[in-house]
Amino acid sequence: MLPFQTLIVIDRRSAAPVYQQIANALIRLIRDGILRPGASLPGSRQLASLLDVHRKTVESAYEELFIQDWIKVVPRKGPQVSQDLPEVRPHHFIDTQQQPSPGHNQPSPLFPYSNEASFPFYNFGPPTPLPGGGKKLRPVINDGFPDPRIAPIDLLLREYRRLFNQSSYKRFIMMGDQAGSVSLRTAIIDFLSDTRGMTFNLDNIVITRGAQMAIFMAARMIIQPGSTVLVGNPNYFMADAIFRQFGANLMRVPVDDHGMDIEFIEKFCKKQRPDLLYIIPHHHHPTTVTLSADRRMRLLQLIDQYQFPVIEDDYDYDFHYSGGPILPLASAAHNGKVIYIGSLTKSLAPAIRVGYMIAPANFIQQAAQLRRMIDIRGDSLLEEALAYLFKAGDMQKHLKKSVKLYHQRRNILCGLLEQELKDIVTFTKPQGGLALWTRFKKEYPLPAISERAAANGLMISDGRMYDVDGYHFNALRIGFASMNEKELEEAVSLLKRSLPHRR
Amino acid sequence: MLPFQTLIVIDRRSAAPVYQQIANALIRLIRDGILRPGASLPGSRQLASLLDVHRKTVESAYEELFIQDWIKVVPRKGPQVSQDLPEVRPHHFIDTQQQPSPGHNQPSPLFPYSNEASFPFYNFGPPTPLPGGGKKLRPVINDGFPDPRIAPIDLLLREYRRLFNQSSYKRFIMMGDQAGSVSLRTAIIDFLSDTRGMTFNLDNIVITRGAQMAIFMAARMIIQPGSTVLVGNPNYFMADAIFRQFGANLMRVPVDDHGMDIEFIEKFCKKQRPDLLYIIPHHHHPTTVTLSADRRMRLLQLIDQYQFPVIEDDYDYDFHYSGGPILPLASAAHNGKVIYIGSLTKSLAPAIRVGYMIAPANFIQQAAQLRRMIDIRGDSLLEEALAYLFKAGDMQKHLKKSVKLYHQRRNILCGLLEQELKDIVTFTKPQGGLALWTRFKKEYPLPAISERAAANGLMISDGRMYDVDGYHFNALRIGFASMNEKELEEAVSLLKRSLPHRR
Repeated sequence: MLPFQTLIVIDRRSAAPVYQQIANALIRLIRDGILRPGASLPGSRQLASLLDVHRKTVESAYEELFIQDWIKVVPRKGPQVSQDLPEVRPHHFIDTQQQPSPGHNQPSPLFPYSNEASFPFYNFGPPTPLPGGGKKLRPVINDGFPDPRIAPIDLLLREYRRLFNQSSYKRFIMMGDQAGSVSLRTAIIDFLSDTRGMTFNLDNIVITRGAQMAIFMAARMIIQPGSTVLVGNPNYFMADAIFRQFGANLMRVPVDDHGMDIEFIEKFCKKQRPDLLYIIPHHHHPTTVTLSADRRMRLLQLIDQYQFPVIEDDYDYDFHYSGGPILPLASAAHNGKVIYIGSLTKSLAPAIRVGYMIAPANFIQQAAQLRRMIDIRGDSLLEEALAYLFKAGDMQKHLKKSVKLYHQRRNILCGLLEQELKDIVTFTKPQGGLALWTRFKKEYPLPAISERAAANGLMISDGRMYDVDGYHFNALRIGFASMNEKELEEAVSLLKRSLPHRR
Repeated sequence: MLPFQTLIVIDRRSAAPVYQQIANALIRLIRDGILRPGASLPGSRQLASLLDVHRKTVESAYEELFIQDWIKVVPRKGPQVSQDLPEVRPHHFIDTQQQPSPGHNQPSPLFPYSNEASFPFYNFGPPTPLPGGGKKLRPVINDGFPDPRIAPIDLLLREYRRLFNQSSYKRFIMMGDQAGSVSLRTAIIDFLSDTRGMTFNLDNIVITRGAQMAIFMAARMIIQPGSTVLVGNPNYFMADAIFRQFGANLMRVPVDDHGMDIEFIEKFCKKQRPDLLYIIPHHHHPTTVTLSADRRMRLLQLIDQYQFPVIEDDYDYDFHYSGGPILPLASAAHNGKVIYIGSLTKSLAPAIRVGYMIAPANFIQQAAQLRRMIDIRGDSLLEEALAYLFKAGDMQKHLKKSVKLYHQRRNILCGLLEQELKDIVTFTKPQGGLALWTRFKKEYPLPAISERAAANGLMISDGRMYDVDGYHFNALRIGFASMNEKELEEAVSLLKRSLPHRR
């Protein structure tokens, strides 16, 4: 008889019942060919004694195997491994050295329309503390996050609790509308009317997981392989990645201090109608420049003349420090061509991902179907809770508070850069947003600085994700919103210490 | 001079500052052509008096317009509308009757690869209470939801609070790993090893928003237009919708009491290698049947022989009432061909959407990139909180409790159907899962019953989303898990009252 007492290991701290562990172990032995078809198994009393478990436990394990057709019970002979099960060798995901693809045998394009195997993804920083188990974590310069320390989390948790304590039926129904919570959509309609002069109704808005999902969905619905998409040079690299993996050809539009070069777009349109324009008119990513009012008007004319669809990504409209923000393209006449995308994530915390897309009703209807395919119903709980924070005015209050604080922090960062890195970096004070586009002089290459910074305990990007057509901007977005004065000082000081050739 | 006091309406309860409201109103007047380029605006003192606001407020509004290039200030003449702004008519999303598409001029395929304009989406029920403002909400028969009333929500909220009170740096970093929380992935590795005999490591798992997003991502990576995808007849309609919108041709595999017909798949493979098989071996959706052990082994052989990728959707493995569940395909040898998809949503509440995909490392790496394009970083807060519930054993305890309760509820529903609808419906007692596949005799067409039920205040599906190739199953999934005894009785009683021709 096989040494079952060594082959079957029972972990009594495991969450799995013991009979299940025994059954699974026996299945593995059958699969491994150690127990062959037709082989006899010990009686339940005998196996129970070998494994030091109750006989009933082994009986349950055998019953399990019987139900699953792994064994049969032969009268007077006891349990036997079934005869007619094919033998299959054991397998673990980790033991296949060659890591075969689930796709075709020949190396198959996992993203069929992608021009490249992988994308230049930016790692935001380490998810784990420093080795040594210390409490101190490495400072990270992110590319424009809000400060979750000031987010109205207690209010949010209060809403969570309230929603969960509502009548049971109501909670059943909280599976939400296909396009997202009606209350939250209503609250956003009011909010955008107040702040952006946009007028639309429930049929024109779908809730998404952050602006990112809205860009993904709009791209999915508009782009076909070979479509031409106009994007900035540089551009938000994650939008580029989305467009490329749907098979788009990207046409780069120069970006200067007044935003995208609209004359360039006009010249392009005269040759060929673009299939899509992706634009961030307000605090362009990564450069933070704002599209000037005359370019904005000219662009609206072009949209009218050439009738191409536009994704207007307006993810940080609410953060503006010098005068008021420019109204969105979507608030003007565009004959349904502008798909407006916004975010509440920047207003709260990176972990709280809620965004929205505003477009004509037929487009939103399809977007809601697509949202359902990706995500069924979103986070209806969070959506309801946020709706309440809007209704109570808490979101608006929080935004006011944030804008005031981030305004100060922007000024602090600008001061620090002027003081500490005067001859090293150039920048334009951003009118708004949560980050500062910091260009390093070419004698100070960012990839080298990033490497040295890591050694000094500071995590920063090497800026390579903004590289376009071989051109290196040698620039870093320094997110100032999430750092207080002390943290900004520490970050800039570490940055300074990480410069490669200080004289 | 224009009647500014009537043209500019100030809402003092609005969240938008008054100066902003004035500026926005003036922009609208310029856009509407009411204020034409070169037109003079009243001085700030005069406008302030007309609008009954402080002069500083009007000055701020003008400053705003000046910054945005809408007006210029002419010495000794005061503010004037800029000369060189093109005129554009005003536009609201809701006023375009014809609802033009943001896409091409000719009606363009929003989903380029879709065979149909829209999909047969199932509405789960009304998101709003009954008219009349009463507290009583309509009962809904869902297709298999967990009962959120028993979910460990207090524990979850406690974790939320704890995470938010952690050191500030840590929260900065809680943007999460690209593939999802390391803690949660580790917890799931342990959990699947305990319960499913699956062995894999961190490189093999990505966290998603429910099983749905995992299916969407896997489909995105595998399917090309024209790909042949084998699916059940019937099948989970939302999976069909995903595959179709990526351009797949669906090949229907018969499903009987022992699951998918594997011989049919074998015959198909002899003619043509499928590009993908989508299978729910354990509690097939919608029919709840389980793939028998011998078919399971035969399928593993076919996968080995013909080397086609498989999506194994195992969304409710943890709910099994008769003996133990069959081990997943992914726990056997499959040479990296099986992509295993699971869900924690069914274990908690519909609103808490967390799932996972397990596959070879190269596939997961690309999936993590795709997740990032769709969703940046998922809900890192929820992921951390759930990881803690696993570590503390709370999830496992909750699952045990749920299985016991749902087991009772399944029995109650079966009893009620036998007692109340004996000659009307046929069903097989499901071995597990959260719903019962209830087939109505053809004299009782579900679309008619559904209509009558709505009149009686009961929301049920008309079963048409399972229609395939013109065949109407005339069946309804009755989710028993979310209803207690009284609610089940009420639902069956209302269902009985809604039958069209009772004799």
